Amino acid sequence: MGKVGCVFGTHRVLEPKGVLPQPAWKIDNTMEIYDNELLIDVDTLNIDAASFTQIKKEAQGDTSVMEKIMLDIVAKRGKHHNPVTGSGGMLMGTVSRIGPAWAGKTPVKVGDRIATLVSLSLTPLKINKIKKYHLEKEQVEVDAQAILFSSGIYAVLPEDLSPSLALAVLDVAGAPAQTAQLVRPGQNVLIIGGGGKSGMLCMYEAKKRAGITGKVIGLGSSEGSCNRMRKMGHADSVIQVDATDPLAVMKAVSEITNGEMVDVVINCVNIPGTELGSVMATKDKGTVYFFSMATSFTSAALGAEGIGKDVTMLIGNGYCRDHAVIALQTVREDPILTKTFQELYA
Amino acid sequence: MGKVGCVFGTHRVLEPKGVLPQPAWKIDNTMEIYDNELLIDVDTLNIDAASFTQIKKEAQGDTSVMEKIMLDIVAKRGKHHNPVTGSGGMLMGTVSRIGPAWAGKTPVKVGDRIATLVSLSLTPLKINKIKKYHLEKEQVEVDAQAILFSSGIYAVLPEDLSPSLALAVLDVAGAPAQTAQLVRPGQNVLIIGGGGKSGMLCMYEAKKRAGITGKVIGLGSSEGSCNRMRKMGHADSVIQVDATDPLAVMKAVSEITNGEMVDVVINCVNIPGTELGSVMATKDKGTVYFFSMATSFTSAALGAEGIGKDVTMLIGNGYCRDHAVIALQTVREDPILTKTFQELYA
Repeated sequence: MGKVGCVFGTHRVLEPKGVLPQPAWKIDNTMEIYDNELLIDVDTLNIDAASFTQIKKEAQGDTSVMEKIMLDIVAKRGKHHNPVTGSGGMLMGTVSRIGPAWAGKTPVKVGDRIATLVSLSLTPLKINKIKKYHLEKEQVEVDAQAILFSSGIYAVLPEDLSPSLALAVLDVAGAPAQTAQLVRPGQNVLIIGGGGKSGMLCMYEAKKRAGITGKVIGLGSSEGSCNRMRKMGHADSVIQVDATDPLAVMKAVSEITNGEMVDVVINCVNIPGTELGSVMATKDKGTVYFFSMATSFTSAALGAEGIGKDVTMLIGNGYCRDHAVIALQTVREDPILTKTFQELYA
Repeated sequence: MGKVGCVFGTHRVLEPKGVLPQPAWKIDNTMEIYDNELLIDVDTLNIDAASFTQIKKEAQGDTSVMEKIMLDIVAKRGKHHNPVTGSGGMLMGTVSRIGPAWAGKTPVKVGDRIATLVSLSLTPLKINKIKKYHLEKEQVEVDAQAILFSSGIYAVLPEDLSPSLALAVLDVAGAPAQTAQLVRPGQNVLIIGGGGKSGMLCMYEAKKRAGITGKVIGLGSSEGSCNRMRKMGHADSVIQVDATDPLAVMKAVSEITNGEMVDVVINCVNIPGTELGSVMATKDKGTVYFFSMATSFTSAALGAEGIGKDVTMLIGNGYCRDHAVIALQTVREDPILTKTFQELYA
């Protein structure tokens, strides 16, 4: 019997004591597992875009300097938690050891190739060597080891999809699963940013749920995004509107729904200032799902109050049960999605 | 027939053109109403706390300087929208004219004493004179006029409650109405900040809905707040825990629920850093309602994902249908709430 750890990994926190691994400055990256931990032989780090850009800039694109910066972060903090951007990323690797108390999780076996779906900013990591840089994909190939706590989520990588395609899908895995929960047959649905990565998955899932009697509208700011939505053909209508202009959004949605507005808005666009447009496009007692990380809590709350609009507003949770399986299946089951994702992300 | 305006008041926006009245720098405060507007003879301005503090400080407590600052804001912007804090407040007054196209609203008559429930930061206002300062209540008595757009919400002030008590209740009117929507018989409910103004209303409403088979837990950081909750007697249990310490919150809630955790968390505490504690106190598939304006969208979203917790997270909407009537009735129907609110706010 090994040492028994906390499900959230607090037993690994070195400074400051008493906090969770994510906010901690430094965690213990000794690669000897506790009872409820999983040891991973890591081959790829998928660094968060903001973090990778910062490191690349600091190193002026020189990979030997990048290596030094990255190794230094992990040496200081026990995790790849960029102190400048505060962000992490994800990793891919092969399960090498499973603690005996790793319980209540979907079955995973030694030798399975997995991607962790929790942030690198909370994952104990030890890098032996950085082997190759993929600057355009924000990925590095490494010889490294990492630990997953039993509260940590992961996905077994599928054999029928390329790892980088799978990783792209898993990055937004919550979106299609949540859309499936929200949309009912016959509803009007608006996907803001429907031409983006999460938007395309939500659009397909929304049309599948709303069915022939429902109306799914894709909104994009750029012509490119709108053309992609039109070409993919999942939307009943595509409108090109600036999502940060609430009156323009309302007017366009009103025209296309004959004044009915929509039951569900799914906001997938990663730019600030789109809260009020989302609220104004929604029917009274309708629902707005904010999947975008650029959402401002106060803009949404005060915006709805300011115009006296009784709508349910949901904070997008990146996790929901079985979200990885659902997201991968979404890309598999539709030939158009499969093709588009392969072109863009494989 | 007068001029026909937009329900959101965009016809009053002077600069910049094309935005809504709230983000606008300057709106038209001509006191001649459009068809779908309401004219109010204003007697009291309830200035937002942050705004009032800033003005008082700038004037070094000299009310004649305060008067100059306040009149200057309204002269420049057509509304009492403090350019430093960005905030507004509410007003009380008597309805003096109703536009003929004021439709789809609850009936209101000329002569009714009302409070507007939309921010002063979007309300056309003309101040003739400031008559009296109530520095401790952040209120000023005025001779003024204001306009309410037909999307603007308001409440007719009740005759059986003092205006300042009614205003205190209306300020958090969304909270008890939303609690009533969320809580079902037999559920475990946690009210974070249950000793505060909105918290007390939510606590009473939660116990009423959860019933004898439910368990309502009040959480407060200070002894004073906990003592108040105990004295009021609406909570089944009261726990004194630092809401910004997620592990402490989880442990305390786990102990008191025998490991079950709660179905619904209502977060009413206006301090940052309480998102993760709220998420960790919730059962899988449970609901967290963030009524606190100090909530960080990303902390909530990434916090839930980081620990793999499948919970529904709601952005508190200050408005829901009939919220004012519901909130005032909540205070009326329970003698303990009536007494406590009278002591604190009358």
